[in-house]
Amino acid sequence: MIEPKFTGHLVPVVVVDAGSHEVLMVAYADEEALDLTRKTGYAHYYSRSRRKLWKKGEESGHLQRIVRILVDCDEDTLLYEVEQEGVACHTGHRSCFYRTLDGEEIAPRVLDPDGVYGKGSGRAKR
Amino acid sequence: MIEPKFTGHLVPVVVVDAGSHEVLMVAYADEEALDLTRKTGYAHYYSRSRRKLWKKGEESGHLQRIVRILVDCDEDTLLYEVEQEGVACHTGHRSCFYRTLDGEEIAPRVLDPDGVYGKGSGRAKR
Repeated sequence: MIEPKFTGHLVPVVVVDAGSHEVLMVAYADEEALDLTRKTGYAHYYSRSRRKLWKKGEESGHLQRIVRILVDCDEDTLLYEVEQEGVACHTGHRSCFYRTLDGEEIAPRVLDPDGVYGKGSGRAKR
Repeated sequence: MIEPKFTGHLVPVVVVDAGSHEVLMVAYADEEALDLTRKTGYAHYYSRSRRKLWKKGEESGHLQRIVRILVDCDEDTLLYEVEQEGVACHTGHRSCFYRTLDGEEIAPRVLDPDGVYGKGSGRAKR
């Protein structure tokens, strides 16, 4: 197995839909998150804002089942190919990349954001 | 225009083929790199190893023409949709993500790596 370079603790993880290859989100992993991802078959990350291990979907139910994990040439970035349960984004969009830099929305909201994490519960921020 | 949060100077940029949506690479941008990318229509980054602005393909000729720039929900990650000239990876693979974490190569090398940056010239590392 290739040992990613966890320089400064974290590596970025690009998350794509295993079927369509759409980029769903970018998050970060430390060694523990990657280990758990491999052992459980579900995506785990390290939350920089909450400063703790984070299983994607643990609150929302929007789990990411791992199909394959790729690593880049420099071995300091990961790519998770996943089957996404529900939506990846806390806004209710399927992908976090739903806007152009000019602010145009290029993809519809498919869920009420209150339905993603429960009304008033606050969002599970990455 | 959405102003990305250049927290700590740099934001990660996921680069995908505008046609196939294949993830080609991940690099980093500062404000200057993003400005030049928008003004010229060609992908610019900030090289963390060389500590300077970097136009993708300036040495290799493997330019990335910008089709669209997306931003994520948190406005701290960019996605460049590009038309890739040649290959994105210095190894001669089309994408930098050509291996699984277990070390299996899932995509062929399409160019001699010496052909990417010229024999003995050293690589233009990100």
